[in-house]
Amino acid sequence: MNAASPITFYFDFSSPYSYIASEWIEALAARHGRTVQWHAMLLGATFQVTEIRSPVAYPLKREYSMRDFERSARFAGVPLKMPAKFPIATQNAARIFWWLNDTAGAARAVAWARHGLRALFARGVDLSDIGELRELCAEFGLEASAAEAAWNDPQRKARLKAVNDAAIAAGVFGAPFFVIDGEPFWGNDRRPQIERWLEKGPF
Amino acid sequence: MNAASPITFYFDFSSPYSYIASEWIEALAARHGRTVQWHAMLLGATFQVTEIRSPVAYPLKREYSMRDFERSARFAGVPLKMPAKFPIATQNAARIFWWLNDTAGAARAVAWARHGLRALFARGVDLSDIGELRELCAEFGLEASAAEAAWNDPQRKARLKAVNDAAIAAGVFGAPFFVIDGEPFWGNDRRPQIERWLEKGPF
Repeated sequence: MNAASPITFYFDFSSPYSYIASEWIEALAARHGRTVQWHAMLLGATFQVTEIRSPVAYPLKREYSMRDFERSARFAGVPLKMPAKFPIATQNAARIFWWLNDTAGAARAVAWARHGLRALFARGVDLSDIGELRELCAEFGLEASAAEAAWNDPQRKARLKAVNDAAIAAGVFGAPFFVIDGEPFWGNDRRPQIERWLEKGPF
Repeated sequence: MNAASPITFYFDFSSPYSYIASEWIEALAARHGRTVQWHAMLLGATFQVTEIRSPVAYPLKREYSMRDFERSARFAGVPLKMPAKFPIATQNAARIFWWLNDTAGAARAVAWARHGLRALFARGVDLSDIGELRELCAEFGLEASAAEAAWNDPQRKARLKAVNDAAIAAGVFGAPFFVIDGEPFWGNDRRPQIERWLEKGPF
């Protein structure tokens, strides 16, 4: 086990807690000499396998979660305003992530992830809307038609499906989900444990 | 809103995260001039209403949770060893809580809560086993037959049911669950947010 091995970070574009975590994981990792490997995935795929549902799918838990998303963001110092439409389908945004990763490199894909998450959760851009997603791509410096061709490309679809399958095989059932030195951490609220792990090692 | 209003703390005897929280909530509250009102409840009752299931009822999430229970306990400095039989039925332990609360006072009920939670999660005592529960009652200084009569008493059963119904009406869907100045916090992992709330007020 290499003490400086990268942190694997699974996120879903539609997950508010993933968005919050995306805003602190890089700086935290860097403080401890680690890099982060970002994995865009679809929670819907893991939910099918595990029979888990979104926290907002349950009475009582929904009301609490909607409140907790924004409170947890304020606690982390991250701007978040829950979009009117939630949750939304984010497979196209995720396919763009892997398209960029495979053709322009991981750094460009991560930049897109940040851009997309912030667009949805800080500015209310609907990533499930083709028109809004095309506009966002253009704003990010992509050719909108090329991006749309990519998210409709069967190869790109298969790529995301393979990522989802691999995530499930690795034990991932929710997001954000981190794997550090083989140890799994689920949730934005595992941040204190992750900090201790990075600082002092296994506990 | 009174700045020194008590913290309401809902717990289930069968919940490892409730056990961990039970070990820090009193000291944390006291540091901020607050008292804690403990409420023994049955998660099973809230699960019926909300269709939520235990985290250990799902593939993948079960394996993660079993690992996270013990890791989260180590992180909090609380001794925890997951019992062989888990989860277990804890309505009798909860009825003893309310019986003591109503006949001997809240402090005695809280002492029982600590005793029962520690017995289950640090020593592996099976609270769902009548013989083991009677022994635990005797160890705690109760007359075992009186305790057994209490948990079989229709009035005590109705008392616990009323507590569960009131918890659900208050929006409680999981445990541990805290209400502070009207603000709901769910989970042992909301400790940092609770600390900030007590220290600096609403955020």
